[in-house]
Amino acid sequence: MSAIPAAVAHAGGPIRLADVDPRGTPGFDGGKAAGQALLAERAEHLASLQERLFAASTAGDERRVLLVLQGMDTAGKGGLVRHVVGSVDPQGVAIASFKRPTQEELAHDFLWRIERALPGPGRIGVFDRSHYEDVLIHRVRGLSSPETVEERYGRIVEFERRLVAGGVHVVKVMPHISYEEQGARLLERLDRPDKHWKYEPGDVDERSLWPDYQRAYEIAIERTATPDAPWHVVPADRKWYARLAVQELLVAALEAIDPQWPAADFDVDAERARLLALGGVPEGPA
Amino acid sequence: MSAIPAAVAHAGGPIRLADVDPRGTPGFDGGKAAGQALLAERAEHLASLQERLFAASTAGDERRVLLVLQGMDTAGKGGLVRHVVGSVDPQGVAIASFKRPTQEELAHDFLWRIERALPGPGRIGVFDRSHYEDVLIHRVRGLSSPETVEERYGRIVEFERRLVAGGVHVVKVMPHISYEEQGARLLERLDRPDKHWKYEPGDVDERSLWPDYQRAYEIAIERTATPDAPWHVVPADRKWYARLAVQELLVAALEAIDPQWPAADFDVDAERARLLALGGVPEGPA
Repeated sequence: MSAIPAAVAHAGGPIRLADVDPRGTPGFDGGKAAGQALLAERAEHLASLQERLFAASTAGDERRVLLVLQGMDTAGKGGLVRHVVGSVDPQGVAIASFKRPTQEELAHDFLWRIERALPGPGRIGVFDRSHYEDVLIHRVRGLSSPETVEERYGRIVEFERRLVAGGVHVVKVMPHISYEEQGARLLERLDRPDKHWKYEPGDVDERSLWPDYQRAYEIAIERTATPDAPWHVVPADRKWYARLAVQELLVAALEAIDPQWPAADFDVDAERARLLALGGVPEGPA
Repeated sequence: MSAIPAAVAHAGGPIRLADVDPRGTPGFDGGKAAGQALLAERAEHLASLQERLFAASTAGDERRVLLVLQGMDTAGKGGLVRHVVGSVDPQGVAIASFKRPTQEELAHDFLWRIERALPGPGRIGVFDRSHYEDVLIHRVRGLSSPETVEERYGRIVEFERRLVAGGVHVVKVMPHISYEEQGARLLERLDRPDKHWKYEPGDVDERSLWPDYQRAYEIAIERTATPDAPWHVVPADRKWYARLAVQELLVAALEAIDPQWPAADFDVDAERARLLALGGVPEGPA
């Protein structure tokens, strides 16, 4: 069992992001090489837990995991998906990326597009951005009235409570980077032609509102962190640590579920006899 | 460039599956260890080509890849997805698994559910089973009239022609296993409790119709293999070879597309100045 999940969890109460060191490695006392080695080592464990979850779902187990990734631009959400979720069988993963809402989405309640993207039983769902956009950018940019944003915190808590009751293990992660690290990463996107496609001028506009966003994150976390659906503020200036931490969070969620191989819903001996009767099978010990 | 894609391609004309050795390794003269090493080595190349395809799509490039996996039970479709497609960024992959059609699907034309599952630009789509179910099991089991099945070959050719014209590189693969290998794999699913969930009694029923299915595959391949959307009959008794072959087919498709990093649609120098003006960025050489 890893010490990381507990070290990054926030299950309620006030939080000050300025008190969380983006270069920290809470719950892990090794360095980069040790972290990368552990990431590779635990990848198989994660994949195997997910396979068992999927197997259990074929026998009616409704449980599943939802990883919500919500952070500032360049915080490394894409890398988390690639390097952590990427080690799981892609057939067991459902990724939803929430961009600027379409006209159709805007015509519905803010949770409408979210509901439609929930993972099925047996799967690890990933939200790259999420319903939290509607209390973060909406608050900072005034895209919704303060009353509407206020109401949404409660709606989100209700929504996530319902998910948890339905067997969804909700793992909410804010990869937490420093202002300096974001600056360096944006600059790299400008300096490398093979990264230009990842750059959007709007990113600098958002960066100019950094303190407002940090405050909006604090409020969102305070208002929506619950014991059943805690937030995890994961230091992310060191990409290797953030990846390891998110991997351990997924492992912990799956170990809590502890999915079991389902029992055969057929008569194994009778099936073996039917199969052997068709020929073409090297008869092994029965 | 690998010799495998050409060695397994079938772009038209009669085919006899009995003439294709399921234990063969066409286009590759190494053994298992060399095959596995090459698979690992080429995984990065495949992932990098897909990333570039995705980048190009953000600038309007509509091209994409569709891998159609259609084979007998236990032929290794799941393993192909896990071990070949699994090396690509999961954000760049769209997997659709076609099971027994739902009532809603049955109320529509057989291509309806297929159209809805097509990958978006920049992605590698994977069909685990496909529209070919409607000319394979439907032919063998008489689920549709002979006239309807007959008509569908033409409909499929038309449909795939339209896909190709729209920028979809269609890669159709039949992982080809022997009757004996299927028997051994089914027996393993019965002998291992952690594999019971993969076993269905119906698999043995289908196995009893093996020659009919082989013939149905031959006819489907003959009627739908075209120069633009060829079939690939991939020997699959040796899992390592099948995986290597499918990887090379995907690499070849992406190399044929040859996606390019898109040019910046913004003024790089102006953006750099805007970014630096906000502070918090270590100033590098401009």
